[in-house]
Amino acid sequence: MRMADSFQTHMEGYLRPIEDFLTAQFTGELPQKRLFEAMRYSLLAGGKRIRPVLTLEFCRVCGGDWRTALPFGCAVEMIHTYSLIHDDLPCMDDDDYRRGRPTNHKVYGEAMAVLAGDALLTAAFETAAAANASAEIRADVMTTLAGCAGEMGMVGGQVLDLEGEARELDAAYIHRLQELKTGALLKAACVVGVQAAGGSGQAIQAAERYAAALGLAFQTRDDLLDVEGEFEKLGKAVGADGKKNTFVRLYGAARCHALVREQTEAAVAALEPFQDRTFLTELARRLAERDH
Amino acid sequence: MRMADSFQTHMEGYLRPIEDFLTAQFTGELPQKRLFEAMRYSLLAGGKRIRPVLTLEFCRVCGGDWRTALPFGCAVEMIHTYSLIHDDLPCMDDDDYRRGRPTNHKVYGEAMAVLAGDALLTAAFETAAAANASAEIRADVMTTLAGCAGEMGMVGGQVLDLEGEARELDAAYIHRLQELKTGALLKAACVVGVQAAGGSGQAIQAAERYAAALGLAFQTRDDLLDVEGEFEKLGKAVGADGKKNTFVRLYGAARCHALVREQTEAAVAALEPFQDRTFLTELARRLAERDH
Repeated sequence: MRMADSFQTHMEGYLRPIEDFLTAQFTGELPQKRLFEAMRYSLLAGGKRIRPVLTLEFCRVCGGDWRTALPFGCAVEMIHTYSLIHDDLPCMDDDDYRRGRPTNHKVYGEAMAVLAGDALLTAAFETAAAANASAEIRADVMTTLAGCAGEMGMVGGQVLDLEGEARELDAAYIHRLQELKTGALLKAACVVGVQAAGGSGQAIQAAERYAAALGLAFQTRDDLLDVEGEFEKLGKAVGADGKKNTFVRLYGAARCHALVREQTEAAVAALEPFQDRTFLTELARRLAERDH
Repeated sequence: MRMADSFQTHMEGYLRPIEDFLTAQFTGELPQKRLFEAMRYSLLAGGKRIRPVLTLEFCRVCGGDWRTALPFGCAVEMIHTYSLIHDDLPCMDDDDYRRGRPTNHKVYGEAMAVLAGDALLTAAFETAAAANASAEIRADVMTTLAGCAGEMGMVGGQVLDLEGEARELDAAYIHRLQELKTGALLKAACVVGVQAAGGSGQAIQAAERYAAALGLAFQTRDDLLDVEGEFEKLGKAVGADGKKNTFVRLYGAARCHALVREQTEAAVAALEPFQDRTFLTELARRLAERDH
């Protein structure tokens, strides 16, 4: 089998259970079922599922059963989804489209979108707490999730983004912003995979290095797509970040293309402690070349 | 010592460490420190701290050291605080005052208020995860917190409230709404106290019954204060709930006063399995008579 085929097969072996797990959530004929609809609208909107895939694969390369990590990976995806819903709100980025569909508040109204985000964040911890793993592993995973998602992680990054608006920022600030806003949750995705497998501290550090480089490459690619991409492929407005403090504005497009390549290779290099690193290597390289 | 004195002493023995614990959170000179300010603005706004007090006392009456329960009680208070910040947003209740001060978004802007709420909810789980207790207890507590705060608990109740606006609701709907919106988090406060002490299933059930009755009495008293109270004591607008589906609108004020008394006695009766129930009894009775 060629590399491309086996990568795709491996990926689909993860994507199906991830979609099945997420699709089974927030159902039922309860009075608050419109909340469930709003949560599912964004959760099941055809995201790339990069974060849960990372969780499952890091669990596997650390010698664990990826099924153990499934609720943890889906918890990370719930946190990612909540952050998108709140980010799109009129008082935040005020975006009308996401993944080719109207944003959550455009369909359900602002109040419901705030609550759907709140409920998805809470459900992430509920899902992790209910996983079929030891109390030690569940407690470790929830520590990682909360630490990476909160004021010292993702939300901290969103605040730097907010406060940096309408100011020219230096490279250190933008790197810190992206490290928190995008990097922290990618880090959580990789680390909870290691934790689900009961992996070593050395494995956690390698996962963190992979995630940090991947996050930088990923965000830089995102910024490039915002100026060079197409609405049809992206499913959201092109040029929307024009006034934002992106890597493209900081370094220019040419240097950004180089940065994506460099950081992708740094991510690959971080995988050195793991024996079976074919999939994670290929994933990093594909993310560097994606057009959406 | 008279009952009133000993109640006050017992209460202050809890309030000081609660305030100290909360005051120590979200400090430091980081780029995202304005987020910390926004979080602390609402967290340290002079709330009554009923929820963490319940947590500490339920831990104590179940034979535990209340110090073990301190981070768990403060986690509940963080969840309570986040829910108030999001509830006050223009797209929700659009309130300008809370506890006698401008609401969070009035001071920090809507975007920061959304993020401060998100960060406090996340920090609740971070705080519970970092507690000095066994992994089993921490995992149990986080299960309770997430279950009571999420789509089947508090957020579910907020959705019922939102969807019930501008409609006449029946008693069953309003009871369900209040049971989730106010009751679920009070339940969490009591139950995590029992869990912190490693209490029995019977103790958890008793704590749930106490919390349910206390929650109903508490909410009914709140609704009465909204029509009969004074701005100076409440620190928020009087009559603001006029068009809402409250117990007062449903039953009228006279029957509501009787309901507060009945439910307070039901709460007291639920304490029967606990030997030392003086403080929890007195707390329920004082909450029934409060003027703010």
